[in-house]
Amino acid sequence: MKTTIPSDVLSAVITALRTKSPLVHNITNYVVMNNSANALLAVGASPVMAHWVSEMEEMTAIAGALVINIGTLDDKWIEGMLAAGKAAHRRGTPIVLDPVGAGATSQRTAAAMKIIEECHPDIIRGNASEIMALVDASVKSKGVDSSASSDDALESAKRLAEDTGAVIVISGETDYITNGSEVYTVEGGSPVMTSVTGMGCTATAIVGACAAVVADRMVAATAAMALMSLAGERAAAYSRGNGSMQINFLDELYKICHE
Amino acid sequence: MKTTIPSDVLSAVITALRTKSPLVHNITNYVVMNNSANALLAVGASPVMAHWVSEMEEMTAIAGALVINIGTLDDKWIEGMLAAGKAAHRRGTPIVLDPVGAGATSQRTAAAMKIIEECHPDIIRGNASEIMALVDASVKSKGVDSSASSDDALESAKRLAEDTGAVIVISGETDYITNGSEVYTVEGGSPVMTSVTGMGCTATAIVGACAAVVADRMVAATAAMALMSLAGERAAAYSRGNGSMQINFLDELYKICHE
Amino acid sequence: MKTTIPSDVLSAVITALRTKSPLVHNITNYVVMNNSANALLAVGASPVMAHWVSEMEEMTAIAGALVINIGTLDDKWIEGMLAAGKAAHRRGTPIVLDPVGAGATSQRTAAAMKIIEECHPDIIRGNASEIMALVDASVKSKGVDSSASSDDALESAKRLAEDTGAVIVISGETDYITNGSEVYTVEGGSPVMTSVTGMGCTATAIVGACAAVVADRMVAATAAMALMSLAGERAAAYSRGNGSMQINFLDELYKICHE
Repeated sequence: MKTTIPSDVLSAVITALRTKSPLVHNITNYVVMNNSANALLAVGASPVMAHWVSEMEEMTAIAGALVINIGTLDDKWIEGMLAAGKAAHRRGTPIVLDPVGAGATSQRTAAAMKIIEECHPDIIRGNASEIMALVDASVKSKGVDSSASSDDALESAKRLAEDTGAVIVISGETDYITNGSEVYTVEGGSPVMTSVTGMGCTATAIVGACAAVVADRMVAATAAMALMSLAGERAAAYSRGNGSMQINFLDELYKICHE
Repeated sequence: MKTTIPSDVLSAVITALRTKSPLVHNITNYVVMNNSANALLAVGASPVMAHWVSEMEEMTAIAGALVINIGTLDDKWIEGMLAAGKAAHRRGTPIVLDPVGAGATSQRTAAAMKIIEECHPDIIRGNASEIMALVDASVKSKGVDSSASSDDALESAKRLAEDTGAVIVISGETDYITNGSEVYTVEGGSPVMTSVTGMGCTATAIVGACAAVVADRMVAATAAMALMSLAGERAAAYSRGNGSMQINFLDELYKICHE
Repeated sequence: MKTTIPSDVLSAVITALRTKSPLVHNITNYVVMNNSANALLAVGASPVMAHWVSEMEEMTAIAGALVINIGTLDDKWIEGMLAAGKAAHRRGTPIVLDPVGAGATSQRTAAAMKIIEECHPDIIRGNASEIMALVDASVKSKGVDSSASSDDALESAKRLAEDTGAVIVISGETDYITNGSEVYTVEGGSPVMTSVTGMGCTATAIVGACAAVVADRMVAATAAMALMSLAGERAAAYSRGNGSMQINFLDELYKICHE
């Protein structure tokens, strides 16, 4: 794993996760809830999954960060996301958005744009297709998997950062993290990570945990992607397929953050 | 594993999955979403889970197959299933139905029948109790587990095939695949597969992937069940319980389709 | 593992689970559905996850126990929980409640109280914070993780048992099981269990399975916690992190109940 941020900064983030154990409030998709929760526990955070409109105000009030992920969307869930997002924004709680499948249907792209406009996420993490679709509605993605490389999306990411004020993260062979002017990178990980469902969603959850303990959003997002990459390449070294990869990834994340 | 279709036909299906990487649109139950997605990735397909009525038309338009699974049903989800199913039928996109728990409650049986009548699935996969309940509403099943052997359900499956025009798959110690006149079989697998939740749902998802790349529905369904059986018996050989079985199964499926 | 109930009583519960294979109806949260189902299969029970109001009456009629878990709540799900809970109570089917996150938001505490008042659960299992919040609404918990030790909650548990007539289970380093006058305990398990999401929810599901086969609710609840503790400490001995712990736990539970 190779990244822009120095290793002592990464170590400081890991220590902050362990000592502060931030509560991360997730409104995320059904597919990844279990793995996202376990990944948050692995890095020392405390996950809560909650989407009920009635409790969004109170849940947001006790959370260190809010993660919104539109992977399995419907009207009711959008309502919960907007309620939580507005409450979090009012309180200054960091918000991380994962626009899963933006570009796959126009409804998803529109939902992601509405969340951006009304909730002002601090960080947006997606794959290349998703980030490009948020800038140019004519870009189409294949379901929830990217049909472009992260390199292709960097200019879109810079423009999205300027338009929204958010730090943008593009996952890919190289991860790019940008606020519009600066660009940080993370290299490493493993191709088998793309065969494990919800690895991107896990990354977004970890970005949320880091944003809860580190004020600098570029550093928080980069540290999270570095943790993903490091755990991914260590796990890939002894995994036999995507089943064991999912499990070994959690173990490696746990070992990095608990030892 | 022993099956009716020749091994070179099975190999051709595996190659087609890898080279075409079909997008499989799943409206499935909460219990199995993660595993179904990982199983689809293991065989080389690209899974998307989406149930929002508003995006069903567009999502169906980009998918190679639609999988409808009624495992954790409610009114809203039935609405999404019908919208997606009708759109897929109009487009000629293969539809696979898993009538989970048909026979457990009359509401489930009725919901499955409504989907059959309005969406015309190409393939229906269930356990013996479920298939029998779709033919004879007086058959009761115990929750989502079968209380009959697959042998008992073969006549019901033939009749259901004739009534609906769908290929019917009965999972069990022997898997039967029938279009009403012909019967293909798959033998093998492992009894421990019945102790892993959602193995039937995984089978249905893989049937969807195969139906997206192979026009012959008897071959597509049989190839999918053969993949399940092969991965299952290989995984069972070194699994210690149903936890490792779930993971090892994915690894074996991944190895069969990626090597 | 050390517990109040004799080992032959525990053995008898395990045998009853295997021979009766009770159908356990779960209305539980999205995060844990897969693991709860696998844990129920591991102990020999047959899980069904169903929340659709329309089928609650019929599903309850075939179930040996009902497990209600409020982990990812919303209005629709509360409706299903109340419908199922009332039907189960009318039939004398054992009901187990898991008040996940009671104390985190006032809405959750209120929902749990409403279920208690209208459905009369036979057993309530929670962590220390949750149990304390049900007795004293001013107690606040941190999301879904406990901010108190199980020892601190014992007096609250006794009072809750007296007020509701339910057996109360507090999970923690020591598990306490009380009907208000007697107190049973389970010691053992492993600290890494707190890093696996939904271990408490799994415990509640197993309590449901045991309550379906054993009339004495103190024994049923204690046996379930003993199974959790035993499987947990065996699994922890060879797990590398919370990923493998989740899987190894299921394997050990499976081995205890299948050998």
